[in-house]
Amino acid sequence: MTNFADRLTKRIEECNNPTVMGLDPKLEYLPSDMLNEWLKEAKDHEEKSGQPANMQMATGMAIFDYNRLLIDSVYDIIPAIKPQFAYYEMYGIHGIMALRKTIQYAHDKGMLVIADAKRNDIGTTATAYANAIIGETKIINDTTACMFDCDCITVNGYLGIDGIKPFMDVAKEKGKGLYVLVRTSNPSAGDLQDLKLEDGRQVFEAMAENVEKWGQELIGECGFSSVGAVVGATWPEQAVKARKIMPHALILVPGYGAQGGSGKDAVASFVNGKGGIVNASRSLMCAWKKRADIEPMELTQMHGPSGAPLLGFQRATREEALRMREDLNNAIKASAEA
Amino acid sequence: MTNFADRLTKRIEECNNPTVMGLDPKLEYLPSDMLNEWLKEAKDHEEKSGQPANMQMATGMAIFDYNRLLIDSVYDIIPAIKPQFAYYEMYGIHGIMALRKTIQYAHDKGMLVIADAKRNDIGTTATAYANAIIGETKIINDTTACMFDCDCITVNGYLGIDGIKPFMDVAKEKGKGLYVLVRTSNPSAGDLQDLKLEDGRQVFEAMAENVEKWGQELIGECGFSSVGAVVGATWPEQAVKARKIMPHALILVPGYGAQGGSGKDAVASFVNGKGGIVNASRSLMCAWKKRADIEPMELTQMHGPSGAPLLGFQRATREEALRMREDLNNAIKASAEA
Repeated sequence: MTNFADRLTKRIEECNNPTVMGLDPKLEYLPSDMLNEWLKEAKDHEEKSGQPANMQMATGMAIFDYNRLLIDSVYDIIPAIKPQFAYYEMYGIHGIMALRKTIQYAHDKGMLVIADAKRNDIGTTATAYANAIIGETKIINDTTACMFDCDCITVNGYLGIDGIKPFMDVAKEKGKGLYVLVRTSNPSAGDLQDLKLEDGRQVFEAMAENVEKWGQELIGECGFSSVGAVVGATWPEQAVKARKIMPHALILVPGYGAQGGSGKDAVASFVNGKGGIVNASRSLMCAWKKRADIEPMELTQMHGPSGAPLLGFQRATREEALRMREDLNNAIKASAEA
Repeated sequence: MTNFADRLTKRIEECNNPTVMGLDPKLEYLPSDMLNEWLKEAKDHEEKSGQPANMQMATGMAIFDYNRLLIDSVYDIIPAIKPQFAYYEMYGIHGIMALRKTIQYAHDKGMLVIADAKRNDIGTTATAYANAIIGETKIINDTTACMFDCDCITVNGYLGIDGIKPFMDVAKEKGKGLYVLVRTSNPSAGDLQDLKLEDGRQVFEAMAENVEKWGQELIGECGFSSVGAVVGATWPEQAVKARKIMPHALILVPGYGAQGGSGKDAVASFVNGKGGIVNASRSLMCAWKKRADIEPMELTQMHGPSGAPLLGFQRATREEALRMREDLNNAIKASAEA
């Protein structure tokens, strides 16, 4: 199956869960015992080797370790991860190495990877971004290499079709996808996106029309296109409008949970329970912080998909993932009955 | 001097040149003899060590080497470089390492560095990007580290002020700057940016008003703000409109040369010869390709700023930089007389 929309739709059905786990790591999300382990490892190495410890490397290794354990706790019930590139770039080269390893690990476990990179540029440069993140690059010995190897990427359409087409070309060739920002989840999203045009449309509606048009040639057997749209859960009214304009777009829905969107809000753009995927980052990554009954780094009685017992923070994430799945499926059911 | 606009204005005066050298490396820009040297080095190492050659590493090293030699040829006559992040991400981890080294090398030679990254996201994530590229990040041992350490970054304002303010906060604290995309240089820039609003403005004019407003508190002694705007040389009419709306914005002008903008077009948004900087990428990086009279890898009679003789490709870049400087200064003079 080479169409991204089909691959994602199938994975969502297998997991019975339209959730994507946002992996936006900050060191303060990690249990302090885990941080201390990696800090101790770096210092031990310094003592043994006589070389100053590479604390940026230790930071990157701690972050990958946390991501890996989160993936281990949910890969059977969550179809995809969405690493937000900013949080890895923030930790420099070693952060970006952690990102690469996280992508590979998620793929090894059968998850899809949506690169939340919001890249945008003009033609030739957009091609470079597309090659970097969802395609491949020719290197010095005339072979090609996949650099980030994600399944899909978020992009910003402010530059028009020149900046989108290169992503579409790579997506088409490689069976990958893209989500164009239409209506974002943040409070000031409307500053530009809600401005009213002289023909009565709002700016985000004009963007939505572009997305529907651009996506025509990448519609899969599932009925949705691999050219999708980002529409925040915090604006259900705009989500309904956007869906009307884009009947074929896969929709990526940020803003559920920590940002205030409810299950009902999050599925406002779904069509017969399909065509969307809802992101949760902090509520999954930091689920253990809300659980006074759990020791984050101690083994629990709950088992993960591999059969191994889960650590406290893994259990908290799995339980939150199960709760969210139920919440979304209930919201889908309620909207079908309404 | 801690205001970016002041630092850039001073550097432009010292070089008598409102040019920024875009460093957007592609392997095919490099002379084949140089590529072959790095390929041979990788293979020799493979033979000696018995380990398979790391061709991605060789690619990154070749790219940094080319950038370094380009910088060596012009650092006294060009005030800043503008690495386009896409071209480094395209070469993976080793590409990004080449980017880091290029930034450090340019700084060592007294050049400013404008990160052409066009980042954009909501609040907390925009903060992560700002920390990554123009700020610093707290790492595992409770110290902080500068990851990319650029002086300025390009950003996309589609998400509104939430997505811009974090960059402004870091810029203010660290004496850094940002350029917001207003009117880009590509053919389809108008798809969204030229749409007419019900109040008669176009979308790019609404964005320009935001930029002028956002920039008020970062105006330097030079009279320009460290919150600047990207306005392409390919649209001089829009550039004049944009400047009227943004009297205080520093303007970054892409689209000169290869994309079709003339010297006159490129300085359309300048005020008394100031307040703008014009980008040239391919025309500087690949100047040697237009010179049948030059052997790119052979030493020439021309000397660079360090006193060392320049290689053919370095000489071609320096001569093109001098030609462009004259072209822009003539255009500034002509517009003053008009």
